[in-house]
Amino acid sequence: MKNLKDLNYGIVGLGIMGGSIAKAVRQNILSQNGATGKIYACNRSTACLAQATSEGVVDQTFTSDCVSEMLPLCDILYICLYPHATLNFLIDHKAEFKSGAIVTEISGVKGLFEKELPSILRSDVDFIIGHPMAGGEKEGYANSNAKFFIEHNYILCPQTFNKPENLELMRDFITEIGFTRITDTTCDTHDYKIGFTSQLCHVIASALVESAGDPEITAFGGGSFEDLTRIAMINAPMWTELFISNKEKLCKHIENFEKQMDLFKKYIAEEDSENLKAMLEDTREKRMRMGSIRSVKNK
Amino acid sequence: MKNLKDLNYGIVGLGIMGGSIAKAVRQNILSQNGATGKIYACNRSTACLAQATSEGVVDQTFTSDCVSEMLPLCDILYICLYPHATLNFLIDHKAEFKSGAIVTEISGVKGLFEKELPSILRSDVDFIIGHPMAGGEKEGYANSNAKFFIEHNYILCPQTFNKPENLELMRDFITEIGFTRITDTTCDTHDYKIGFTSQLCHVIASALVESAGDPEITAFGGGSFEDLTRIAMINAPMWTELFISNKEKLCKHIENFEKQMDLFKKYIAEEDSENLKAMLEDTREKRMRMGSIRSVKNK
Repeated sequence: MKNLKDLNYGIVGLGIMGGSIAKAVRQNILSQNGATGKIYACNRSTACLAQATSEGVVDQTFTSDCVSEMLPLCDILYICLYPHATLNFLIDHKAEFKSGAIVTEISGVKGLFEKELPSILRSDVDFIIGHPMAGGEKEGYANSNAKFFIEHNYILCPQTFNKPENLELMRDFITEIGFTRITDTTCDTHDYKIGFTSQLCHVIASALVESAGDPEITAFGGGSFEDLTRIAMINAPMWTELFISNKEKLCKHIENFEKQMDLFKKYIAEEDSENLKAMLEDTREKRMRMGSIRSVKNK
Repeated sequence: MKNLKDLNYGIVGLGIMGGSIAKAVRQNILSQNGATGKIYACNRSTACLAQATSEGVVDQTFTSDCVSEMLPLCDILYICLYPHATLNFLIDHKAEFKSGAIVTEISGVKGLFEKELPSILRSDVDFIIGHPMAGGEKEGYANSNAKFFIEHNYILCPQTFNKPENLELMRDFITEIGFTRITDTTCDTHDYKIGFTSQLCHVIASALVESAGDPEITAFGGGSFEDLTRIAMINAPMWTELFISNKEKLCKHIENFEKQMDLFKKYIAEEDSENLKAMLEDTREKRMRMGSIRSVKNK
């Protein structure tokens, strides 16, 4: 099998996620004895390229105009753009990928890619569908951090056309850059579950902020409101794409959630202590059974 | 003015909040040179009384049966029970409070007390209505911690009958035990705003857990779901009381929140990118303007 420390890595889009992947590769893989691999990065604006070069995170950088020079060099290529830009990039640059390469991307909806597979695939390049479930609410390379991945989940959506040795290499890679748990699933299940754990949570946090009448409300906060709305410092263009790309599943989750809100509201309005208490006891028990990704490492 | 380090403190209900107050008084006030004050505690179950005694947190403890012996000793008396139990305690034990004492409580609804003031008040005892906006999702003395109060809010609802010197003493006390910001308001405003920042957040977190079909859902989590549902490890009997005691205001907040959810749902279902993006940009800006209680200290 190929040795990760001798591969060349390409990052298209050196933002918070692309930057974090580059830093993790540098620190965890290319720092190994005898490593010969390189990291290449391409980004539309060049300030982050200069910073990543000066920090020794990347070996060579390319402007968007010159990305065609970078792609044939990369054994593992990560496209870290917004979902539709990623799809368009995969289609537009298909002919330029290195023969034998693994090409992958990070976006939060997968149905989008599954539908367009015939336009993306090339028999000598393996396209692996996956989703690193990590990041931060602040954008840009300046906020990237190799530590984001520690104690976090990675979802893979293996396809029948994926070569087993490439999936194995990808799993090794994901573990090497710090992720704790890899879960295999289908694109459809990914979009349904991520619609719940991620997209629904972002809609809720945003609706909660929107329903606050008073910007001074935090003087009355005890921490709950801050916990629930941290993610409302939202990247509007990206989440607009994500929400709309997954609209059927997300709207279903919103409706299920609203049904539970309505049930709580009914019990409260009717002063139905007995049912309200029973439901809250069920909530507590359910939440405790769910556990925490952070506890997986200690199992 | 009275000196905090020479006063005797009483805690009725030595759980997470009562225990945290006792610990903060011990560490921040009675540790001062020449302090002569004492801490007395009463609790229904006695295990926590033994633990607090052995840890040197309290000077003398009383079982529930003997609380009438403790009350006449206390210059500042904190009732740290569930809301209705607190109200009943204030009414039942009114005759036993020390003349000149400040009596206060910690519960998350205040209208309850305002309505019953004639049954609570005694001309030589000052009842101060306040709410420490701090705590943790785990109950009991074993989970109490003096540090909970640092960088947190305290709400006071001063009444016309409160003596100015007692309010001043109370403010000193609140600051000494670690709170960062004290906000004065009415009981009505307190209940309206806490209905939003605290109660609505707890309903949302609970409804989100209830709408999760799958206990294995955390394998698909990136942190958002965990942030939003930490507080769903809820103390069911207490929150049932809080929700129902504040039902009109809380149901209004639930409805306002649901309106915003419906608006998001509409934009998503209609693929209305323009309005969705504009609303998310507004969310981000609103959330950033709200700031953080944790930043108050640096102002």
